[in-house]
Amino acid sequence: MTVKSKQDESRKAIFNISKEKNFPEWFGEICKVAELADIRYGVKGFTPFLPWSVMSMEIMFDLYEAALQRKDHLPMLFPTVIPESNLIKEAEHVEGFTPQVFWISEVGTGERLEERLALRPTSETAIYPMYALWVRSWRDLPLKRYQRCSVFRSEVKSTRPFLRGREFLWIESHNVFATHEEAKAQVLEDLETTKEVVTEQFGIPVMVFKRTQWDKFPGGVNTYAADTLMPDGKVIQLPSTHDLGDNFARAFDIKYVNEDNELVYAYQTCYGPAISRIYGAMISVHGDDKGLRLPYKLAPYQVVIVPIFKVENEEDVMDYCHRFRNLLQQAGIRVYLDDDEATPGWKFNYWEMKGVPIRAEIGPREMSEETVVLFRRDLMKRETVPLADVVSHIVALGEDIDQTLRKQAEAKFEGLIVDADRMGEIRDAVERGKIARIPFCTTEMDGLECAEEIKAQTGGEIRGTRIDVEEKPDGVCVVCGRPAREVVYVARSY
Amino acid sequence: MTVKSKQDESRKAIFNISKEKNFPEWFGEICKVAELADIRYGVKGFTPFLPWSVMSMEIMFDLYEAALQRKDHLPMLFPTVIPESNLIKEAEHVEGFTPQVFWISEVGTGERLEERLALRPTSETAIYPMYALWVRSWRDLPLKRYQRCSVFRSEVKSTRPFLRGREFLWIESHNVFATHEEAKAQVLEDLETTKEVVTEQFGIPVMVFKRTQWDKFPGGVNTYAADTLMPDGKVIQLPSTHDLGDNFARAFDIKYVNEDNELVYAYQTCYGPAISRIYGAMISVHGDDKGLRLPYKLAPYQVVIVPIFKVENEEDVMDYCHRFRNLLQQAGIRVYLDDDEATPGWKFNYWEMKGVPIRAEIGPREMSEETVVLFRRDLMKRETVPLADVVSHIVALGEDIDQTLRKQAEAKFEGLIVDADRMGEIRDAVERGKIARIPFCTTEMDGLECAEEIKAQTGGEIRGTRIDVEEKPDGVCVVCGRPAREVVYVARSY
Repeated sequence: MTVKSKQDESRKAIFNISKEKNFPEWFGEICKVAELADIRYGVKGFTPFLPWSVMSMEIMFDLYEAALQRKDHLPMLFPTVIPESNLIKEAEHVEGFTPQVFWISEVGTGERLEERLALRPTSETAIYPMYALWVRSWRDLPLKRYQRCSVFRSEVKSTRPFLRGREFLWIESHNVFATHEEAKAQVLEDLETTKEVVTEQFGIPVMVFKRTQWDKFPGGVNTYAADTLMPDGKVIQLPSTHDLGDNFARAFDIKYVNEDNELVYAYQTCYGPAISRIYGAMISVHGDDKGLRLPYKLAPYQVVIVPIFKVENEEDVMDYCHRFRNLLQQAGIRVYLDDDEATPGWKFNYWEMKGVPIRAEIGPREMSEETVVLFRRDLMKRETVPLADVVSHIVALGEDIDQTLRKQAEAKFEGLIVDADRMGEIRDAVERGKIARIPFCTTEMDGLECAEEIKAQTGGEIRGTRIDVEEKPDGVCVVCGRPAREVVYVARSY
Repeated sequence: MTVKSKQDESRKAIFNISKEKNFPEWFGEICKVAELADIRYGVKGFTPFLPWSVMSMEIMFDLYEAALQRKDHLPMLFPTVIPESNLIKEAEHVEGFTPQVFWISEVGTGERLEERLALRPTSETAIYPMYALWVRSWRDLPLKRYQRCSVFRSEVKSTRPFLRGREFLWIESHNVFATHEEAKAQVLEDLETTKEVVTEQFGIPVMVFKRTQWDKFPGGVNTYAADTLMPDGKVIQLPSTHDLGDNFARAFDIKYVNEDNELVYAYQTCYGPAISRIYGAMISVHGDDKGLRLPYKLAPYQVVIVPIFKVENEEDVMDYCHRFRNLLQQAGIRVYLDDDEATPGWKFNYWEMKGVPIRAEIGPREMSEETVVLFRRDLMKRETVPLADVVSHIVALGEDIDQTLRKQAEAKFEGLIVDADRMGEIRDAVERGKIARIPFCTTEMDGLECAEEIKAQTGGEIRGTRIDVEEKPDGVCVVCGRPAREVVYVARSY
């Protein structure tokens, strides 16, 4: 694998934008100079993704799919198109998604299709008619399947690479159970998987919420979701998982013969980690003013080697660099030897901006001493390591980098929550990029009016009730003054 | 990972259809009973792929992408939709693909798009406008990128799972070079990659052809492709690679400043291994009358363990099976312990039909002797192996199975070619499922009439001239009697 890092005026190596003070500019610029995505495609919300992001997203898919497979979910792949007659079978679902659907109605040079086809906005209505054929008996349950694919939604909100696109990359897991209890247990398993993968492996801290009734998945019973905080003080939804109850089973006729020989409806869940969005959150959470800081686990190149030589020792230094590279390759470390003609200083800046976790600097001194200088991007620190120990040292350093990035992110995440019980306090917290914890009347549909009032007065949205901590409300609803039945969290959001 | 293999009347375990005598039935049935694809989706040519095929296709993608990355091609990902104004920029290309395009012209509840969007039938017209922005100087070349995605073509021919779908899975590699010579060298590299992956790793023998001028990629200069033979005596095109010359560079304005500071057009190639189609060919080439025979490299489960016990020793036998499974898992072998309640005999049939390369049979005798009985699906042979040697034995056996499958396929492939210089001989060969090698006037457009005559009289199509062997024509064209300028091959085809 090679990537060009050619030193010419068209390529910028030094990056310096305040992520906290000017996040939109930081994000737009890093997508451009680190070559993550190119927004010039010419169709709103559709963005080509470039190798540096695609290689990391591939790793993220692999880690996510491995976690799902360990928990007995198997991969499948459904068509990208859904017949209109399927899409309209579940009333709330069609109402929720139809405004965003891209429709195929013509083929070739003018032929009209007999039935319009939707580009899948999500695949319940593609998959569940087949589940109705596959699920016959209690012996077929549980059925746990997922697919990795693109989905398409004509978002009205403004789009941004990774964070909100009209086409995005995700995994969607669709499961069928004999009982509602098993379905609810799956929802909890999904939230655990989220923490295992998103937090433990990608280093992104999250809070887990049960969404309000007006903010749930169209057609479902309850939605649970993990939120993280972006550098601009807005929360972003990372994976959500949905308890569908038997709503879709009734709409799509998914029934099974139970052990008592009765034909009954099944219960369902679905779970949708959007890898492209998680990638966008990951680079935003870990990056700094100098550019990307990629976790060792997710970096396309975990180590970049920068040779430092004069004309008289070029060949020897390069030989030593090749020897070092081969050593790392044999150990399964993703390594890139940057033998481009640019200066070492230019390369240092370039790979720091690209977020490569470890840089190896190798010159005549390292060669003669049989050592390597290792520079870690997260803390911008150097150390000298003997060649004999370097592989195990790099593996340990990689672990430490990932732990450090995660701890730094968690440290920022803590202390985010501010208790508030007046509108002014909520507005205040939200404006400072905090999350307000407030007493609230109800997350049933009855509470929607109060939520809209909060949104109008503070710009914040209710993210729901926490399910990862136990909380009892105290006092009255901030808006209506009725007794508070819930503790909810309010923040600006993507 | 688990898969259900429950013994009930709805699931067939014994498969017995003659692959050679009744290939269409064999293929349709194996897709159904081995749970590879389900044709009941309800949109012509769009087929859900099930775990047993998806898990193998994932491995095939991984092996293909690894080969491309070793040769310095990097992954990227473009949008699924292409604006109409892009699609029509290259005249021959638009003529070739437009009849097959699915068009998106509406969004949501009736809004018309300002410009229609095509579902990509192939991505030249999506990618090349961006390449025009990315390629500026000789320093940017060569540019070698690929993507893994679905493409969409409204085929008029009848569709079949994997072999011909309206949505199919592929890798498309798009490359830009400074000179035509480098582009031609890339085409040869692609053909080598085809042999490395399709033949050496997947075990599918191929012949490599330069296609005729009337059968080339729309808009390209020359098309080269690998064909294999299916059990029904028809050839099928596996990956093709295209020398685009500077045709697309001129249409999309892909220019670079060369070392002499002149602004000149670049040269391009593209290469498109269709993984879903290669999967269809792979199972067809290797399968037998009892069902699938999957290569060890590609099987979702490389080893299935079938425990054989009575009530009194169930626990001990299962303990021994778990111990054996853990041993294989630690060695990175994909293993599945079938602890379902079905009988051992039913499981034997089931996993033979599913094509699992190695079955381990474990009963009280194996437990007491610390051995394992291994059954290889390709040759249907059993042997007893001590537990202490079993991992290295399985790894070697896996290699041997893959070699055996490949050699059996190659043996059938040899002796396929029949020399012919009269129409009757060609018809004869084609009807017997052979490939006729014939003297032919020309593969330039001038020869099209003769090709159509051959097609009309024999049902065979001209596959082109071989590029992997040197051949000089002798005599006159079978049809028109003009001096033969080429040796071409004729066969029925998919």
